[in-house]
Amino acid sequence: MLTPESYISGFVDGEGCFTVSFSPRAKLKTGLEVRPSFSVSQNIDRPEVLIVIKKYFGCGEIRLDKKDNILIYESRGLNDIVNNILPHFVQYSLLSSKQKDFLVFKEICELMIKKEHLSLQGLKEILELSKILNFRGRRSYSIEKILSSLESK
Amino acid sequence: MLTPESYISGFVDGEGCFTVSFSPRAKLKTGLEVRPSFSVSQNIDRPEVLIVIKKYFGCGEIRLDKKDNILIYESRGLNDIVNNILPHFVQYSLLSSKQKDFLVFKEICELMIKKEHLSLQGLKEILELSKILNFRGRRSYSIEKILSSLESK
Repeated sequence: MLTPESYISGFVDGEGCFTVSFSPRAKLKTGLEVRPSFSVSQNIDRPEVLIVIKKYFGCGEIRLDKKDNILIYESRGLNDIVNNILPHFVQYSLLSSKQKDFLVFKEICELMIKKEHLSLQGLKEILELSKILNFRGRRSYSIEKILSSLESK
Repeated sequence: MLTPESYISGFVDGEGCFTVSFSPRAKLKTGLEVRPSFSVSQNIDRPEVLIVIKKYFGCGEIRLDKKDNILIYESRGLNDIVNNILPHFVQYSLLSSKQKDFLVFKEICELMIKKEHLSLQGLKEILELSKILNFRGRRSYSIEKILSSLESK
């Protein structure tokens, strides 16, 4: 018998992504908004597993990425992530090195729940952690730039 | 607790592929060799789940696709596929529409075990079935061409 919990972890190990992005927000003391995101993408003609995932986690949305012509399930609410997403992957761990991404993502979300991202010191810690998450992508350079600009504050 | 069987089905639902290819072979009565393949691909920096899959199924090989810079687990032996791969996905079905591909793939492999692919009639049946498998890809046109050439035999 298929167990949906393990199936979802297997699917996410292939198609899922744990990311944290940063956007300028003049109103915030730190000047930067921190946004965690858990997403799973899939070919436009195979929405089925994304629907199962959305129902299973009880949060998030499925949207069409017109540029790449793919469907994306995404959960961005911090409380949804902390209450619904993190506990699943603690119990049903990923088997690939993506597990390292998950552990860093979890650490960042837990700092955010404690409001650490609203202080300059907490934000720096989160930016340093996010380098591990984003080291494969194009974001690494911009995180270095953000960190340098914070050092001068 | 993670159950590896369901995890593997989830991973394969995202990253796996069931295909059947056809190659000219003058020595064969039909002139065509039929080759089924079950494959799972993954980023070059994440070999872990492919290693788990190879060990779990007890067959197949992992190779580097230099062109796309990805790792591919592939099982092509008919007996390996029929004895090791098919029973898994009968018991732990895919949840996406890729399940339809699996069912067609299974039907073709079962025809091959009965040596149906060695007769002209059996080969035509397999070619018709493979159109469902390959309808997304570039192969559909060439299968139509192969079928037309067989009609004249």
